[in-house]
Amino acid sequence: MIRSLFYSPGQPIRKDIPPKEFPKLVRDRRGVLWVNFENEPADTCLPILQRFGFHPLAIDDALQEIHIPKLDDWGDYLYIVLNYLDIQANGYTWETKTEELDIFLGANYIVTLHDTPIPAIADTWASCDRDLRTVQEGPDHLLYRIADHLVSGYMPTVEKIDAAIDQIEDEVFDRPAPRTLEKLFALKRLLQAMRRILLPQREVMNKLARDDYKVIDPRDRIFFRDIYDHLVRLHDLNESLRDLVGGALDTYLSVINNRMNDVMKTLTIITTLFMPITFITGFFGMNFFEPVAGLVGWTTRQVFMATVSIMLLFPIGMFIWMRRRKWV
Amino acid sequence: MIRSLFYSPGQPIRKDIPPKEFPKLVRDRRGVLWVNFENEPADTCLPILQRFGFHPLAIDDALQEIHIPKLDDWGDYLYIVLNYLDIQANGYTWETKTEELDIFLGANYIVTLHDTPIPAIADTWASCDRDLRTVQEGPDHLLYRIADHLVSGYMPTVEKIDAAIDQIEDEVFDRPAPRTLEKLFALKRLLQAMRRILLPQREVMNKLARDDYKVIDPRDRIFFRDIYDHLVRLHDLNESLRDLVGGALDTYLSVINNRMNDVMKTLTIITTLFMPITFITGFFGMNFFEPVAGLVGWTTRQVFMATVSIMLLFPIGMFIWMRRRKWV
Amino acid sequence: MIRSLFYSPGQPIRKDIPPKEFPKLVRDRRGVLWVNFENEPADTCLPILQRFGFHPLAIDDALQEIHIPKLDDWGDYLYIVLNYLDIQANGYTWETKTEELDIFLGANYIVTLHDTPIPAIADTWASCDRDLRTVQEGPDHLLYRIADHLVSGYMPTVEKIDAAIDQIEDEVFDRPAPRTLEKLFALKRLLQAMRRILLPQREVMNKLARDDYKVIDPRDRIFFRDIYDHLVRLHDLNESLRDLVGGALDTYLSVINNRMNDVMKTLTIITTLFMPITFITGFFGMNFFEPVAGLVGWTTRQVFMATVSIMLLFPIGMFIWMRRRKWV
Amino acid sequence: MIRSLFYSPGQPIRKDIPPKEFPKLVRDRRGVLWVNFENEPADTCLPILQRFGFHPLAIDDALQEIHIPKLDDWGDYLYIVLNYLDIQANGYTWETKTEELDIFLGANYIVTLHDTPIPAIADTWASCDRDLRTVQEGPDHLLYRIADHLVSGYMPTVEKIDAAIDQIEDEVFDRPAPRTLEKLFALKRLLQAMRRILLPQREVMNKLARDDYKVIDPRDRIFFRDIYDHLVRLHDLNESLRDLVGGALDTYLSVINNRMNDVMKTLTIITTLFMPITFITGFFGMNFFEPVAGLVGWTTRQVFMATVSIMLLFPIGMFIWMRRRKWV
Amino acid sequence: MIRSLFYSPGQPIRKDIPPKEFPKLVRDRRGVLWVNFENEPADTCLPILQRFGFHPLAIDDALQEIHIPKLDDWGDYLYIVLNYLDIQANGYTWETKTEELDIFLGANYIVTLHDTPIPAIADTWASCDRDLRTVQEGPDHLLYRIADHLVSGYMPTVEKIDAAIDQIEDEVFDRPAPRTLEKLFALKRLLQAMRRILLPQREVMNKLARDDYKVIDPRDRIFFRDIYDHLVRLHDLNESLRDLVGGALDTYLSVINNRMNDVMKTLTIITTLFMPITFITGFFGMNFFEPVAGLVGWTTRQVFMATVSIMLLFPIGMFIWMRRRKWV
Repeated sequence: MIRSLFYSPGQPIRKDIPPKEFPKLVRDRRGVLWVNFENEPADTCLPILQRFGFHPLAIDDALQEIHIPKLDDWGDYLYIVLNYLDIQANGYTWETKTEELDIFLGANYIVTLHDTPIPAIADTWASCDRDLRTVQEGPDHLLYRIADHLVSGYMPTVEKIDAAIDQIEDEVFDRPAPRTLEKLFALKRLLQAMRRILLPQREVMNKLARDDYKVIDPRDRIFFRDIYDHLVRLHDLNESLRDLVGGALDTYLSVINNRMNDVMKTLTIITTLFMPITFITGFFGMNFFEPVAGLVGWTTRQVFMATVSIMLLFPIGMFIWMRRRKWV
Repeated sequence: MIRSLFYSPGQPIRKDIPPKEFPKLVRDRRGVLWVNFENEPADTCLPILQRFGFHPLAIDDALQEIHIPKLDDWGDYLYIVLNYLDIQANGYTWETKTEELDIFLGANYIVTLHDTPIPAIADTWASCDRDLRTVQEGPDHLLYRIADHLVSGYMPTVEKIDAAIDQIEDEVFDRPAPRTLEKLFALKRLLQAMRRILLPQREVMNKLARDDYKVIDPRDRIFFRDIYDHLVRLHDLNESLRDLVGGALDTYLSVINNRMNDVMKTLTIITTLFMPITFITGFFGMNFFEPVAGLVGWTTRQVFMATVSIMLLFPIGMFIWMRRRKWV
Repeated sequence: MIRSLFYSPGQPIRKDIPPKEFPKLVRDRRGVLWVNFENEPADTCLPILQRFGFHPLAIDDALQEIHIPKLDDWGDYLYIVLNYLDIQANGYTWETKTEELDIFLGANYIVTLHDTPIPAIADTWASCDRDLRTVQEGPDHLLYRIADHLVSGYMPTVEKIDAAIDQIEDEVFDRPAPRTLEKLFALKRLLQAMRRILLPQREVMNKLARDDYKVIDPRDRIFFRDIYDHLVRLHDLNESLRDLVGGALDTYLSVINNRMNDVMKTLTIITTLFMPITFITGFFGMNFFEPVAGLVGWTTRQVFMATVSIMLLFPIGMFIWMRRRKWV
Repeated sequence: MIRSLFYSPGQPIRKDIPPKEFPKLVRDRRGVLWVNFENEPADTCLPILQRFGFHPLAIDDALQEIHIPKLDDWGDYLYIVLNYLDIQANGYTWETKTEELDIFLGANYIVTLHDTPIPAIADTWASCDRDLRTVQEGPDHLLYRIADHLVSGYMPTVEKIDAAIDQIEDEVFDRPAPRTLEKLFALKRLLQAMRRILLPQREVMNKLARDDYKVIDPRDRIFFRDIYDHLVRLHDLNESLRDLVGGALDTYLSVINNRMNDVMKTLTIITTLFMPITFITGFFGMNFFEPVAGLVGWTTRQVFMATVSIMLLFPIGMFIWMRRRKWV
Repeated sequence: MIRSLFYSPGQPIRKDIPPKEFPKLVRDRRGVLWVNFENEPADTCLPILQRFGFHPLAIDDALQEIHIPKLDDWGDYLYIVLNYLDIQANGYTWETKTEELDIFLGANYIVTLHDTPIPAIADTWASCDRDLRTVQEGPDHLLYRIADHLVSGYMPTVEKIDAAIDQIEDEVFDRPAPRTLEKLFALKRLLQAMRRILLPQREVMNKLARDDYKVIDPRDRIFFRDIYDHLVRLHDLNESLRDLVGGALDTYLSVINNRMNDVMKTLTIITTLFMPITFITGFFGMNFFEPVAGLVGWTTRQVFMATVSIMLLFPIGMFIWMRRRKWV
């Protein structure tokens, strides 16, 4: 789907402009043109992008999937790649899809390309419809709005992850199960994926906030600085959450380990207590004490009493010995 | 709660000034104005902050929770975020809450915003009451006092953590329990949280000590340098404590591991000593030696003596063999 | 095999030029000369390279195997080492061979040396044959084509690795075997080897894209910048894949560990349930209850009933106790 | 204890000068004044330090314990903090105490403060007594002598640690005990503590060797460079020792692990060999073979022979099977 | 042993020149003087080095053992420390000795000091004997030759290590033994030691290749650049080998772990199969079934058949259960 809108001071907003008019509109220095490509095949986009006079390498990048936020300064226009992280909680795992948003930003136009619907684009477009001021402030301000929207979208995810960690932390102590570990690994992977996107995006915003670009009004840099701060904070939250996941993993492993130690101790205690006295029962079960061997003296009542005493005293002795070694 | 105080040379300190007078007072270049917002809703703060002419983005940052220390230079004023770490020992765990302190510092005024009571603010305010000199030295000196107080507040916590580690280190050797591990993990998390706050705060102080700001008297930079040194030292202490916690964790794990090895060895020794001789008792317990089978010759007194000898010599032999393998 | 081609504006492409003509052709500033050595012994290459007037150290480097991508600026020419990673899936392991491609790039010539056939060279050569324009744009453009081809060649490998990881991730949960671990280690090593090559190659492209070299047309730098971006992306994919392999390793180890814990628990439960009641059977198997000892009262029907009850109740009790400790 | 000495060309060295004369002596540009405070309370030091005109913040730092080597340039004087690491071998553990040495270095005076006796100070003082030349070369040379002495003092400790590691390495293979592990952890902690002091001290020396200070003769920088090199070497030795400790830890763990594996294998072998044949003995111990059940045919001499054969052959078979799995 | 040679254009090479002539020869700007000290006590070297007018600190460094490659620029001469790693394979362990080579490089002289014979020195000396050109190119070229020889000497060691790793990798899968682990740890330590020497040596060569020194002909810098590249490559090989050792360690541990898991599983399977049926044999071995108790009905032929059936079916059931849990 190709959509376009054109604003010129004192005139109503024009929509769905035929592509062949784009070069003319771009020459109107006071106007603002926004062209948006959503899920269009490369063949459709290519000729339209060429009308803007973009460098073939930049067009190549825009039509291929690159997936790493970056900013190329081509003088009269900037080529910017941003990422949109689509995260869906799916039971206790998380499905993440990284979507790419390609942006060409000129002095009086902005061209955006993406494959799947991105809320930041849809909402900004709707806002242009509702409120003329959105578009009046120029294409760099539109870029700010889109990026701000994109970045704000991470916050609910971060909060969902936070809640998930809280819930798992309780689970770790009460009923640690292999599933708990899977949940933790899923969160760890998710946070790694987020971090991988936040860092280069932060770098792009830093460049927009600091460097001197022909198409960015220096007074607007402060807005990109604001998004940059937002991304710094998100990165910091991400680090904190990774610490929490790391801590929960440590705790899980130590809880499991303690339980296993308990199991092994029980095994050893039972074996240690019963194996020797079972040997004694075996001893007196031998057929030597049948009348044939004439060892009748070994199976008298007195010996029986002594044997039973040993069978009672031996476990008590072992228990005391284990106590002293702090096993029990 | 909104509080304000205004000092002008030669006049008594004015308090609880109506907000509409603020712009006028700010124009009095020789005066010092301090406005403090504690736990006020954004709606109340917004119009008052706007009277000072702060940039909308800075006001946004101040009214939202950001939680990362930073410093923005807006020319006529600085916007500074500091953190206050509220740590409560709760049994052997620690409850930490990071509170945000937003500061606007102008040439002759300082505006502070926070949600919960912060001792550094309360004490500096009280000191302004008691001693005129506190406020005479200008708003940058007030900032120094607040920051200094904030940073000094970490020291008792560090000492409590140090004591806690000392106590755990003894526990690790004497009676290591799963609880010991939890305590260590709690300390590790606490130190991580502290470190996360100390580092950006240190950076803010470094900027105040090194860079040239319109609203900071160059002769006062040395004071921020002092706080910077203090934070460097706290960070170093934090690293040392983390080393100690790491060392205690290593020791705990090796003590537990040694104990488990002991347990397994005992299991193996008991099994190895008794299983073979129990087999022998079983052997002579078989019904072949009942008169029916005519194997009466196997259960004579001589065989019995031989059997008992084996039952005594076998464990001794095994013991010698284990000794040589250094198990016992 | 030594191959050469020479293009001069308005003339047909000459091929297989005798080496002694090279110096003369190089002096023709408008021509483009490409000399390619494939698997030639050093003795053959040496005199030809000397005709170009390359520095002895550069020739030494080109004739020895160095294996690390680098770029040396010798003023009139660049000496560049690129790597070609030949990866063959071999069952579940991977055979990787790093091949070296040495390049001398002058203002109007390019000399390439390699030991094994490299597709990037073969294809670019073929393209020169087919299409005059390939060679018209000068030797720096030929370098771009070769490097671009080389770098594009990593993509299918990355996709193969991606597919392999997908398949292993399923395996890890369903039927983890020692072989699964070997596969993961093999992938880890492969990704490490790739990373080791990508990073210095990226640095070479960065230099070509940023620095000012006599033999590179500044307008062509943007092409090397494009390859640089491609390598950044490959490096990023590599990192993601390493994360995935790391995650699969973690999962494998925890699945195996869970299984082992299950095994140990079963051992303990069986032992704990049966050892005590086996002792009881042994107790009543002793020969004291033969008529001789006169302990006939111990083996009455009532005692038997009581014994059988204990043998039934004891395991039930143990089971409840284990339940409470959350073993079962 | 406060000690002072004053050297003026052509005059005998004066000692124990009354503090009130200090300002006068400092004005004598050709003289050299050294004041040393050892374990003096802050109240005593404060007024004397104030006579020198030091900045209140610098005095504060000197009177408090800071414990991190640093260098502050106050223009007319430098404030330097150095550390002295007092290491006592205590059985197989090490007691380390970090002592702080505060130094004020002016153009013609040096003021040193410390709490416990430091050999570097004591020896340099004694050398001033013995040899006029020590003090003649100016206060920056005195600083060099003190720092050089301080740094040389680490060498014997490093050698002691080296010897301790050598001894432990033998122990690890011959008779690894929990104590061995404790020794290794103690060494690790000691080396960490050393490293923590060496690094900032190295930075201080680097500054003295490179930067331009009013009170340091540029020709004397080479001496601080020498100490810097010494600290680089110590840091390098420290890294090597840490590698050795790390290697010994790895070896210890693998030796212990091998032993535990041996233990577990023995347990399994014994159980696997004896449990099945013990079952057979139990089988034929059942009372079915009493005359009552009429199963007399099961307990004939032939069956006995067969049973004994199985009891002999079974363990042999198991042993062969284990051999093939490479357990034994 | 002190050796010296002096070359002056048009004259034969002089040898074993008396030390007192050195200052005179050094003044002959066109000559080249090389003095080599091998295993000479400091007392002998000191006066000779002083004749060259070296700074006392530089002489100190040269006469003590420092062991860290470094480069000090003293203006008229450079003081350089290089290292020679003497590696001897000793069974499966490696003996490494780091030897120090101290070099003073002046405009027309070079002074070298070392304790043990170093092949790089011996060969360069011999080459001066054989071929006048070696010495004609000046002392900086002699330095290049020595350093080049030193660095080339690492290559055979790297190849030996490579072969050793190859051999161990086979061993790890076929017959992993504690000794295998020791070999791997030995290789790890060796590679760590190599790395520790390569890095600072690389830095020295980088300085010689980049910085401007009075005593190095700028045209000769390219030679040091060549050694630098060689060291970069060695460092890279070292990293690869460390990866391989790391991979082999991982594999070893997982092979051992798999084996141990096998052992534990076998233990559990045997116990689980035999303990319950052994209990049954015990049950029927109790003396209740002696005629006395009148429980004769429990030991009839039918009960026997049922019991034997249970004894056969029970293990089969357990086996199916274990199969389903994927133990077997």
